[in-house]
Amino acid sequence: MVSTPVVLGLDFGGTKIAVAVGDLSGRRLGATTIDSRVESGGAAEAMARGIAAAHGLLAEVAPDQQLAGVGAATLGIPYDDRVELAPTFPGWGELPFGRLIRDGFPGVPVRLATDVKAAAEAELRWGALAGSDPGLYLNLGTGLAIAIVAGGTVITGAHGASGEIGYNLRSPADVYVGPDERTILEHVVSGQALETTGSARLGRPVTAADVFTMARTQLDAAVLTDEFVRELAAHLANLAIAIDPDRIVVGGGLVRSWDQLEPGLRRALDAAVPFPPELSVARFPSDAPLIGALALGVEAAGAVLGAEAFA
Amino acid sequence: MVSTPVVLGLDFGGTKIAVAVGDLSGRRLGATTIDSRVESGGAAEAMARGIAAAHGLLAEVAPDQQLAGVGAATLGIPYDDRVELAPTFPGWGELPFGRLIRDGFPGVPVRLATDVKAAAEAELRWGALAGSDPGLYLNLGTGLAIAIVAGGTVITGAHGASGEIGYNLRSPADVYVGPDERTILEHVVSGQALETTGSARLGRPVTAADVFTMARTQLDAAVLTDEFVRELAAHLANLAIAIDPDRIVVGGGLVRSWDQLEPGLRRALDAAVPFPPELSVARFPSDAPLIGALALGVEAAGAVLGAEAFA
Repeated sequence: MVSTPVVLGLDFGGTKIAVAVGDLSGRRLGATTIDSRVESGGAAEAMARGIAAAHGLLAEVAPDQQLAGVGAATLGIPYDDRVELAPTFPGWGELPFGRLIRDGFPGVPVRLATDVKAAAEAELRWGALAGSDPGLYLNLGTGLAIAIVAGGTVITGAHGASGEIGYNLRSPADVYVGPDERTILEHVVSGQALETTGSARLGRPVTAADVFTMARTQLDAAVLTDEFVRELAAHLANLAIAIDPDRIVVGGGLVRSWDQLEPGLRRALDAAVPFPPELSVARFPSDAPLIGALALGVEAAGAVLGAEAFA
Repeated sequence: MVSTPVVLGLDFGGTKIAVAVGDLSGRRLGATTIDSRVESGGAAEAMARGIAAAHGLLAEVAPDQQLAGVGAATLGIPYDDRVELAPTFPGWGELPFGRLIRDGFPGVPVRLATDVKAAAEAELRWGALAGSDPGLYLNLGTGLAIAIVAGGTVITGAHGASGEIGYNLRSPADVYVGPDERTILEHVVSGQALETTGSARLGRPVTAADVFTMARTQLDAAVLTDEFVRELAAHLANLAIAIDPDRIVVGGGLVRSWDQLEPGLRRALDAAVPFPPELSVARFPSDAPLIGALALGVEAAGAVLGAEAFA
């Protein structure tokens, strides 16, 4: 048996860790998902379980094959010795993320990325942002972020922090006030925010998806989702004015409620933006970061990606 | 005498039309400025006067030299048969801008650009944005706009309309409302806006620069400039969060009041942005669009620009 090289992609998210093994063309050979359980077990333990799950998957789907590259995506901005902008994930910021990944797969080339940028990479290469220039990827998951693609690449920013609009100011009253002393946009517009506000205002524990479902028949829930879409739309419209994208592609867990998100966002873009962009669900709405991580793994391996890998 | 080729740059602004002649390395050989007088004479007449001024300048500084390229910058987004997003300049929108420029210089290759993007081009090539990736150019002139540079180029947008943040929504209350029925950001944050509001609130006709001067000693004027800087800072901070630029460079007429603009903008960026960018005045704060137009003229001529042309 010839030992064909494989690559590994890991996506460390707020609630789950996803792992995939692919070949050098990016084709997925196997994937698995485990709960993050950061609250109970801690960040280092979650990381170790993710790496163990990856080794388990490799042993299962590619037992005799060489691991040629690893791509790892995470919430926050990963560095070798820390993760920036991951305050909601206890202990994650202090994690030597890159070092732990390298230690987990000794001698294998590694590439790191922010989850939303990895997702945009996947959409740009193989999904709904193919050929877009410029284009916007909007992630509506536990958190809130965007990624900008232009000139065939994802704009990472001068510090890898572009697109972190969860930190946005909500009004001029927020000017001169630090993120800890103001209500940042993500505290109002995100899956986590809708879950928290929904549970408080509706009087029982609900998920963001529950709130959208209840909004079909209940006025109090509909008020919540209307406020949510309105504030999201204001920021999305201003981003579309600044970037002039040909399209905006939306991924993340909340796109399960797309039929309730789309009309307001569409209407807001049409009203506000001189040249309104297209608006659609991502091709890989729920696992784009994982697919992006796999793409990073292929890049790390130095292989040339086939554009048709996920066709 | 050897007939060395020259290029021409034209910048059609809100109050003036600037023209420059340069050599193929972009070095300026001569320049002139005339009043736009669009209100009294109309758009077509202003255009004709600009073209006549260019011919006059050419006859003066390069009488026997071949005109090898023309670059023309304008407020609004120029096309051959119209100018988009130039509502404040009467008749300018209907002007067949590109065609008139071509007709004015028959047989000479022409390049068109929005003035703020031309300015960003000049700063990127020869000025304060050299090496910036990504970077932001903020124009505080009669109007309000930005340009984003990334990967060594100015992001024009899918329809040439990126950076037109004058159209920004000011709050979620503006969502679903068209630009004509809401107060767009430019109606509050621009030189024109400060002049209008200042004249109304201070009880006599004042320029934007007057308001800033008065703000040093008068409380009513200081309230106006504080509000102005605060609202500008909110939008600039959100743009910096989205783009993660290494620097923001500011041009346009209002930079004459930079010592009163800079502290508030600096403080706002430091408070709001995860990785606060540098902030400085543009290298060519008042004539970057003209220099950018000259660069476009050189590009049109197909010549290779020397990076030291304006050193």
